[in-house]
Amino acid sequence: MRHQVVIIGGGPAGLLLGQLLHRRGIDTVLLERKTRAYVLGRIRAGVLEAGLVGLLEEAGVAERLHREGQEHDGTQIACDGEMFHLDFRALTGRPVTVYGQTEVTRDLYDAREAAHARTEFEVDHVEIHGAETDAPYVTYVQGGRSHRIDCDFVAGCDGFHGISRQTIPLSVRREYEKTYPFGWLGVLAETPPVYHELIYANSERGFALCSMRNANLSRYYLQCGLSDHPEDWTDRAFWQELKRRIPAEMAERLVTGPSIEKSIAPLRSFVCEPMRWGRLFLCGDAAHIVPPTGAKGLNLAASDVHYLYHALWQFYDTGEREGIDRYSERALLRVWKAERFSWWFSGLLHRYPHQSRFDLKMQQADIAFLRDNRAQQLAFAENYVGLPY
Amino acid sequence: MRHQVVIIGGGPAGLLLGQLLHRRGIDTVLLERKTRAYVLGRIRAGVLEAGLVGLLEEAGVAERLHREGQEHDGTQIACDGEMFHLDFRALTGRPVTVYGQTEVTRDLYDAREAAHARTEFEVDHVEIHGAETDAPYVTYVQGGRSHRIDCDFVAGCDGFHGISRQTIPLSVRREYEKTYPFGWLGVLAETPPVYHELIYANSERGFALCSMRNANLSRYYLQCGLSDHPEDWTDRAFWQELKRRIPAEMAERLVTGPSIEKSIAPLRSFVCEPMRWGRLFLCGDAAHIVPPTGAKGLNLAASDVHYLYHALWQFYDTGEREGIDRYSERALLRVWKAERFSWWFSGLLHRYPHQSRFDLKMQQADIAFLRDNRAQQLAFAENYVGLPY
Repeated sequence: MRHQVVIIGGGPAGLLLGQLLHRRGIDTVLLERKTRAYVLGRIRAGVLEAGLVGLLEEAGVAERLHREGQEHDGTQIACDGEMFHLDFRALTGRPVTVYGQTEVTRDLYDAREAAHARTEFEVDHVEIHGAETDAPYVTYVQGGRSHRIDCDFVAGCDGFHGISRQTIPLSVRREYEKTYPFGWLGVLAETPPVYHELIYANSERGFALCSMRNANLSRYYLQCGLSDHPEDWTDRAFWQELKRRIPAEMAERLVTGPSIEKSIAPLRSFVCEPMRWGRLFLCGDAAHIVPPTGAKGLNLAASDVHYLYHALWQFYDTGEREGIDRYSERALLRVWKAERFSWWFSGLLHRYPHQSRFDLKMQQADIAFLRDNRAQQLAFAENYVGLPY
Repeated sequence: MRHQVVIIGGGPAGLLLGQLLHRRGIDTVLLERKTRAYVLGRIRAGVLEAGLVGLLEEAGVAERLHREGQEHDGTQIACDGEMFHLDFRALTGRPVTVYGQTEVTRDLYDAREAAHARTEFEVDHVEIHGAETDAPYVTYVQGGRSHRIDCDFVAGCDGFHGISRQTIPLSVRREYEKTYPFGWLGVLAETPPVYHELIYANSERGFALCSMRNANLSRYYLQCGLSDHPEDWTDRAFWQELKRRIPAEMAERLVTGPSIEKSIAPLRSFVCEPMRWGRLFLCGDAAHIVPPTGAKGLNLAASDVHYLYHALWQFYDTGEREGIDRYSERALLRVWKAERFSWWFSGLLHRYPHQSRFDLKMQQADIAFLRDNRAQQLAFAENYVGLPY
């Protein structure tokens, strides 16, 4: 069996790439280890940059997004009980769109099915062969049977733990990593959001984030210990702690309710260089992880998809390899910028073990500088709404 | 004996305050532990913010500064051999002035002598009494004889190791400190500067700074180990190392020569709160230290002098105590901003022990963001030329 492009991983990066390529007449097969239901059960972020919205439009899957998504013109930053507003629209002319990653993924699966593009679920033992040759192929096992797909290119969209990155020899690969001494405890609740914008809160008890998916679906996060387990946290304890970390006026209006999902994620910064090895391309979490502060994960995957989509389209349209040859360089240039922003914004808002009194004062001074200095606000807003591709 | 204000410390902060007060008819005595020659032998920074230049004008001591000082419209940042320009004048409309702190101090001593204001050198065992009362006085020993000066106010301009800060009880004082795991090895040489602007260089061998005092007096610095001694570094070794840390095109033009001064200074961030205790005010290094990156030390002392001068002038002119009561709050607001900038700029440019590959990438990404993002350049330039008083 033969396809032009094998996409490994059925998350939003792989699905978006597949849909964009499909619209240009490029044939893809998508391999996913789990089921569609499993993928759609994963709760992820939901703040979309304009660049990602543009790609979803180009892929023809933005109809529901435009109907149900909420445009946010700004965000709130709270520090020690005081809150201030950063107005993205006034600063940059651009908003962000709040629309759950789960919904993006659902829309993309619906579109893929409507396009009758081939998708194989519950595949196992995926292996990429000959990526450094002109005749790569992918093998996998499904339902006990072995399969082989020959192709022109392989897009590795299979996340941090996927096999795509591991396929690049260690002698070629260079990895950069930072782990953070805390995690995020997230709760999803069918309650109206406490505020119409996100609230990023630095408090003496640690970081908190008030976010939302829609008018009756709230998403809240608390900085927690790395050894905490979700079952250690009752709903009651979660809401109590959240109220202590956000400004009093917000704590008073907070509507609580039973959690419908509760999970803990560690925070990590990670980058793999290069992002291309021969005819294998890494996309999204397969190549890089950002801490969730600032919601760059999905947006950065979209940035990779943008470069890869244009590279493959150029190749199939004109035979020109320039986009392919420069994919890694172009993608990484933007990756490092988003890594910088996510790392800086995480450092701004979390409390660290062994943070000295001076370090704490510097954190407060950084927040005050953001509150008071228009140039700093603009630099922040340009990053938050998304740097240009 | 009685004076309105006792100024402890004959560095630029105390001298500038004395001269400004003198021009408003307020009578000061200045106590200095060392001799005038000793004070003028200390080599310090030489980049003056417009605010400090304005104060020197108001004090009537800016004539030589305007004749001999050089206005710099921008600075150079180098990273791994590549150099880029930041244009303060284009970004903020304001330059900085390069004029040695030693020269500022000399001009201020000349003016103090011309004004016949009382200055006592080589005083010892200075003690501040009754600062929390309405009748403070200062005692000291000079030439074996004890003296007492009664006054309205005491200005503690006696630096980090001075007695003024120590006079504030520990129960009142709160101190914040960060030490850095390296020092600056500085060399003064009678050679033409390598470039007409300062060059701040982050290199894999550590930080370097190319600075100057005038057209034939250069000042260069190298990041060095905390256990290094100036005598470990021959002139030849210094120049060789400097050339390796700056861009090749600059290394080629560098004119070397015998050092006329060579010293090592540790880097420290330090703030004492509050900066007023009753009728005792702390000014400059007595209350805060910044690492020298960005040359904020003297400028920050000038900012304190600005607030204290206006507070005392207001008090003697109108009897109003508002400026006195709010001195600490106002001065500290600007102190923390300058501390933030100096800490951030130091972190941007130095190599740290145990810096991970990821940390290094973040440093490079921060520098690239400064190189490429106009809003970030503006935020930088506003700090570098000096935030408003």
